[in-house]
Amino acid sequence: MIQTPYLLFLGDAPDQLAAKVAQGIKDWRPENAVGQFRMEGCKADMGLADMSLKEAKAAGAKTLVIGVANRGGIISQEWKKVLVMALEEGFDLASGLHNLLREEADLVAVAEATGQQLHDVRIPDVDYPIANGIKRKGKRVLAVGTDCSVGKMYAALCLDKAMQERGLKATFRATGQTGILITGGGVPLDAVIADFMAGSVEWLTPDNDDDHWDIIEGQGSLFHVSYSGVTMALIHGGQPDALVVCHEPTRDHMRGLPGYSLPSIKQVEDMALTLAQVANPNCKVIGYAINTQHMPEADAKAYLAEVEAKHGKPATDPYRFGSDALVDALADMT
Amino acid sequence: MIQTPYLLFLGDAPDQLAAKVAQGIKDWRPENAVGQFRMEGCKADMGLADMSLKEAKAAGAKTLVIGVANRGGIISQEWKKVLVMALEEGFDLASGLHNLLREEADLVAVAEATGQQLHDVRIPDVDYPIANGIKRKGKRVLAVGTDCSVGKMYAALCLDKAMQERGLKATFRATGQTGILITGGGVPLDAVIADFMAGSVEWLTPDNDDDHWDIIEGQGSLFHVSYSGVTMALIHGGQPDALVVCHEPTRDHMRGLPGYSLPSIKQVEDMALTLAQVANPNCKVIGYAINTQHMPEADAKAYLAEVEAKHGKPATDPYRFGSDALVDALADMT
Repeated sequence: MIQTPYLLFLGDAPDQLAAKVAQGIKDWRPENAVGQFRMEGCKADMGLADMSLKEAKAAGAKTLVIGVANRGGIISQEWKKVLVMALEEGFDLASGLHNLLREEADLVAVAEATGQQLHDVRIPDVDYPIANGIKRKGKRVLAVGTDCSVGKMYAALCLDKAMQERGLKATFRATGQTGILITGGGVPLDAVIADFMAGSVEWLTPDNDDDHWDIIEGQGSLFHVSYSGVTMALIHGGQPDALVVCHEPTRDHMRGLPGYSLPSIKQVEDMALTLAQVANPNCKVIGYAINTQHMPEADAKAYLAEVEAKHGKPATDPYRFGSDALVDALADMT
Repeated sequence: MIQTPYLLFLGDAPDQLAAKVAQGIKDWRPENAVGQFRMEGCKADMGLADMSLKEAKAAGAKTLVIGVANRGGIISQEWKKVLVMALEEGFDLASGLHNLLREEADLVAVAEATGQQLHDVRIPDVDYPIANGIKRKGKRVLAVGTDCSVGKMYAALCLDKAMQERGLKATFRATGQTGILITGGGVPLDAVIADFMAGSVEWLTPDNDDDHWDIIEGQGSLFHVSYSGVTMALIHGGQPDALVVCHEPTRDHMRGLPGYSLPSIKQVEDMALTLAQVANPNCKVIGYAINTQHMPEADAKAYLAEVEAKHGKPATDPYRFGSDALVDALADMT
């Protein structure tokens, strides 16, 4: 686990989009973000207090999180000056970049000298078991998508937030780098060795109270030929009791695969449910999380009504219109 | 690629079963096996000439293959004496053990000094790409199973042999350690990092002649919760034109999963075909490879007739009764 709270490092971000990780932390775990650290020329702003390292330390920050991706995902010399100073000030560092902190000899040397931790959430730091398929206590809901990047993480975080607000027992379980940095822990599933994928998901979602829900972040899609194996491991390792099908209606082909059209919601629902019932015969689809960010509000609402009418279960854009109907369905199951 | 032919190292194998890898090489690539090397107390015998290292070298052997697994999969001190001598005699070493050759400092030192290669086929030695899903030339057939270890590798090797005998263009594509040692190359799919699984299968089965068949060794099962992600990557990365469904009729639960019953042949066929058609809309199931080793011949033949009648496609035990009907079906597709 990464120590919280964080100081968010925005570096020399060329625009707001480049600071996606920082944005996620600020949106979903604002209590984890003490302030932001921006270098000269930084074009991103989380609306947090700009702090020096010393100020952030005094305010209680324990880890400097690299909340920005620069071109090529590398750690630049300009960044390093700040990172080295942060270690010397007593911060741990956390990063989801492909260029690992531990690959940089100078950072490793300073971390050792200062006794601070380098957290590379890009790759696992646990020896996961092979999945045993044994039924676990507690409940689990998994987001599955018609495609990659259709809003599965946001849907899961929305559910988590809504359940916390209702006083229900729930834990968001991160399976990707951004989710891990947001919450401080999880499994970087895309970097796990094939044989241990499903086992890592079992490890992430252990026995729990009967009325506790693990809200498992989805990855990939059963219909995305590059990443479907990862999705499969989530379905079997997660042994979900409930599935939420996620979809982005304006996309004209699978992400990164120009020749591949998206499956229908129905196709994903049927396939995911059949496979999920191998591990959990009682699994059911409780509804649909539709990412309507590219649709005007009236169109979005009409589309959601259409999905509900067609499939007979609640459909919402949980980020835009809330997730009450989905939370109701989960609450009904415990 | 591992240099052939081999001297098969049987070590101090406690029984014939422990020498499964050597047996596979001897059964499927006898031309790759110059002889066998047995230590005192060895209880396995491939029926090959017993040779000293010098004799095998003189007979043309280039690689000493560890054809045996001892308890715990470790490289013992007794073995090491032979392995060091083999390197000094000018052999490369190849092993599929979890205990890697490269983890043994003494073997590494001698290999460097002698300029010989250490091949650990347990883990990949290639940086595989992420799958791009682009349609490739040539044909591919994939073995999919109702469970793990139901005979998918043997089915694929039988098809390969029968196709070679008919003069058809075919290549067996190994995706597991035993298959890699048998043929000298392949992808150790269970050890590939999640994001690159499907890409490694694309890499393994590249563009080829229109009338060439890649015969892809299957792994796991879509219905085996521990390994289904690997199977999924084979189906999408392999973009098969043809599927052969493999089954072992006497098994009473999924391998290693006592609470899990086997799916029906029909369930596997429907699921695998639907998923395969995402990557290759023309994919079809051509027939069934049934592992009848635990059934008397009359029962086996009755069972095969029953499967054929029920599913309307050829069913055979390719190892016991040949694979003509399956090869006919493949030949008809080119």
